[in-house]
Amino acid sequence: MEKQERKVSMAVVKRLPRYYRYLSDLLKNDITRISSKTLSQRMGVTASQIRQDLNCFGGFGQQGYGYNVASLYKEIGNILGVDKAYTTIIIGAGNLGMALAKHNNFEKRGFRLIGMFDVKQELIGQKMRGFEIKHMDELPAFMKKYRPHIGILAVPKEGVTVVAQKLVELGIKGLWNFSYVDLRMIGEVEVENVHLSDSLMTLSYKINQK
Amino acid sequence: MEKQERKVSMAVVKRLPRYYRYLSDLLKNDITRISSKTLSQRMGVTASQIRQDLNCFGGFGQQGYGYNVASLYKEIGNILGVDKAYTTIIIGAGNLGMALAKHNNFEKRGFRLIGMFDVKQELIGQKMRGFEIKHMDELPAFMKKYRPHIGILAVPKEGVTVVAQKLVELGIKGLWNFSYVDLRMIGEVEVENVHLSDSLMTLSYKINQK
Repeated sequence: MEKQERKVSMAVVKRLPRYYRYLSDLLKNDITRISSKTLSQRMGVTASQIRQDLNCFGGFGQQGYGYNVASLYKEIGNILGVDKAYTTIIIGAGNLGMALAKHNNFEKRGFRLIGMFDVKQELIGQKMRGFEIKHMDELPAFMKKYRPHIGILAVPKEGVTVVAQKLVELGIKGLWNFSYVDLRMIGEVEVENVHLSDSLMTLSYKINQK
Repeated sequence: MEKQERKVSMAVVKRLPRYYRYLSDLLKNDITRISSKTLSQRMGVTASQIRQDLNCFGGFGQQGYGYNVASLYKEIGNILGVDKAYTTIIIGAGNLGMALAKHNNFEKRGFRLIGMFDVKQELIGQKMRGFEIKHMDELPAFMKKYRPHIGILAVPKEGVTVVAQKLVELGIKGLWNFSYVDLRMIGEVEVENVHLSDSLMTLSYKINQK
């Protein structure tokens, strides 16, 4: 399928990773075709929502025939850019940084961790996925040599703005921020902020409503 | 302000934690009143969105006068249930479990971690926030004695369904699941699934569109 220029709303984009995960599971279970109805039952959303979302990309489903799982998986992967083999580095080798570094799913999704940085002397030199944790002082040379795409920020809130600014100056393309503060887009650099406690508070809301 | 029964859409609910965070920061900076316009500039959303969202709860803002930060903060906290001092336990003391356990923000948001469980012998007995990591065999007795509200699942994907089922049988009220699989609500027990890679793929999409 030829890649086309597409405008997709962010609401749809934010649902795509979930489709991608479910399709990945279907493939693992050797399911090659699926109807929007069956997929909707598995995912707990309406079939009409699925058709509407996936029709944004045109021509995947066929009436009475269902979706070709492999081609839909591949196409959504293309849209999400997981076929680009984006490389990542993690700033901050505390527990969260370590958990993210050891998280196999990111590699499975096509993101390759190539470096990890901290300032704590006792962490420098520790082995992680075939490389050693480096001191932040080595970041400029590393960035120049390897040009990683995505900087994962797992540093304390206090330091995150300075670190983000430095990564931007050194040519990072995107920032994935876990540091409990909303970073805005800096120049052309895209940012995704993760606020774990938001999801905990949503759960708390649901419990509280009972 | 008297607490009322409210029906709020999940879309609004999911935005409330963000308001809560921003209001918390305003309070820390001794800002006692804020207009929807100023708040909208800080948060990067429209003033009309803010008015619409916050009007769901009725009577906070006054024309030309703005919101009372402290009372809005308190009210949103009440709605989210953070005033309930819900207690949590973590199942899985790997890197992610440890990162979550040491995450100060959850305590700040009113959630108190009271226990942590694993099956790996070398982890049992380790100190964490004033208690010791316990073996899963001790879970039933612990649940009976302390009745924690929220179970945080930081176990491998393969084990999560069994662990979730066990927690439900033992009377947990909600599950916060980090185990890379969508858990559905079990009986009356609420579930929030966290998929970190979804947010990474959203970032990847944005980079890929450039």
